[in-house]
Amino acid sequence: MMARMLINGVPTDQVPALDRGLAYGDGLFESIRFVAAVAPLWPRHMQRLGESCGRLRIPVPDTEQLLCEAREVARDMPQSVVRITVTRGIGERGYALPASPQPMRLVAAFAPPPVAAEAYVQGVRLRVCAIRLAEQPLLAGLKHLNRLEQVLARAEWDDPAIAEGVLCDSRGRVISATMANLFAVIDGVLLTPSLDRCGVAGVGRAEVLATCPQAQVGELTLDALLGASEVFLSSSVRGILPVHSLAERRYAAGALTRQLQQHWHNLGFSMEQDG
Amino acid sequence: MMARMLINGVPTDQVPALDRGLAYGDGLFESIRFVAAVAPLWPRHMQRLGESCGRLRIPVPDTEQLLCEAREVARDMPQSVVRITVTRGIGERGYALPASPQPMRLVAAFAPPPVAAEAYVQGVRLRVCAIRLAEQPLLAGLKHLNRLEQVLARAEWDDPAIAEGVLCDSRGRVISATMANLFAVIDGVLLTPSLDRCGVAGVGRAEVLATCPQAQVGELTLDALLGASEVFLSSSVRGILPVHSLAERRYAAGALTRQLQQHWHNLGFSMEQDG
Repeated sequence: MMARMLINGVPTDQVPALDRGLAYGDGLFESIRFVAAVAPLWPRHMQRLGESCGRLRIPVPDTEQLLCEAREVARDMPQSVVRITVTRGIGERGYALPASPQPMRLVAAFAPPPVAAEAYVQGVRLRVCAIRLAEQPLLAGLKHLNRLEQVLARAEWDDPAIAEGVLCDSRGRVISATMANLFAVIDGVLLTPSLDRCGVAGVGRAEVLATCPQAQVGELTLDALLGASEVFLSSSVRGILPVHSLAERRYAAGALTRQLQQHWHNLGFSMEQDG
Repeated sequence: MMARMLINGVPTDQVPALDRGLAYGDGLFESIRFVAAVAPLWPRHMQRLGESCGRLRIPVPDTEQLLCEAREVARDMPQSVVRITVTRGIGERGYALPASPQPMRLVAAFAPPPVAAEAYVQGVRLRVCAIRLAEQPLLAGLKHLNRLEQVLARAEWDDPAIAEGVLCDSRGRVISATMANLFAVIDGVLLTPSLDRCGVAGVGRAEVLATCPQAQVGELTLDALLGASEVFLSSSVRGILPVHSLAERRYAAGALTRQLQQHWHNLGFSMEQDG
């Protein structure tokens, strides 16, 4: 894996072993798609990072500095994903918050994940994961570093024909995919699950909601999802991906999915040319 | 913070920035009390680590090698806590398990946390935490690196007179303290909460259960806890701590607590002399 990175502004690929990010997953991250030096969704990423730091009581990093560092690690890359990780830094042993936290910021650029061009045209195949997301309102929505549920979910299948897994909560309500948010058109209404009790409130999701003010945020059952006329995934890294099938159910890529793909294109993304 | 450490056997205080332990909390840890070169509960720690690695599908490290490394970092320390962290190592980007995981092991020795000698005699004061533990059976019992709930719980108070917080699940059942397991004597019966849905199955707890075969594992309500005749905490790092009070309720340190403290002493621990 090739990656260029800066840790607290210093070029290195090592972090302090006693960082609380490693000890407790005590931190947050953003995965930000860049097209050359431009990240079209940058303001949304910084808004989420700031709000999330506030919820975890981690001092908010300087976003201008983060942008400089992101551009530095992504330089010369026509397409990249910059992962910004912010942790509470080195702490005394034990869970108690350090009296004077010195947050650690890790800014690393990667090549975008390969997505076949046809995935954007024909759509991707999904399965339903067996793991149920635990409900923790105090962490819901955050892109924090406690991601073992996603690791276990993604470990449920290794068929490369299946792109993603649908995650439900303990009551069987659909929440998201493992690394994307999920939208469904049901009876002509665009719906995405509420993330008040679990799940990650993606930046791509926020862009969809801002673009489609008629969209509803609410409860989505698996039955309703299977009955939807149109289903797509949103991701700040992969953009808008039509869902072609979920288990035995097949969907056609609908008009709204195509409109949102066009919107992504208009924002300056060109993900369809990756694969 | 002073700590001597080995990472994959090499003396260094830095870990690879792309380790999945930092990226996702994808790993486990053990905090092991040593008296000079001896860890009386070592076999239980290694048993838990092995079982936990199995549940997370992380290759189990060589326990003989871990013991050598633990003794190396703890050398010359009459009392120490050795934290062994095992992660899934560096992975490709994304949640999917690496095809050939190269686990990372981090073995670090610390001075034991200061506990006042009188805490072992008179007991400690507890509060009830507002955060409720989320229920995730697939992770319950594991001492994994996703510990944001404990960080948030411990951040609820900063009164140094309060030693610990009681954690309940979403249905209000008592599960544990933030960094210790909890036992209560109710109607003459020793009871500790079931950890099938959340909580960490501590090595100290396992030792108590092995020592007291009459103990029961089951449901413990907050009301039942408040009505208990005797309450204590178990911790592999701190040993057996009587609970002196929980909010307004006061408890006397009982006969069973004293017996278990004596058992800890007989195992070779001498925690009462720390403070």
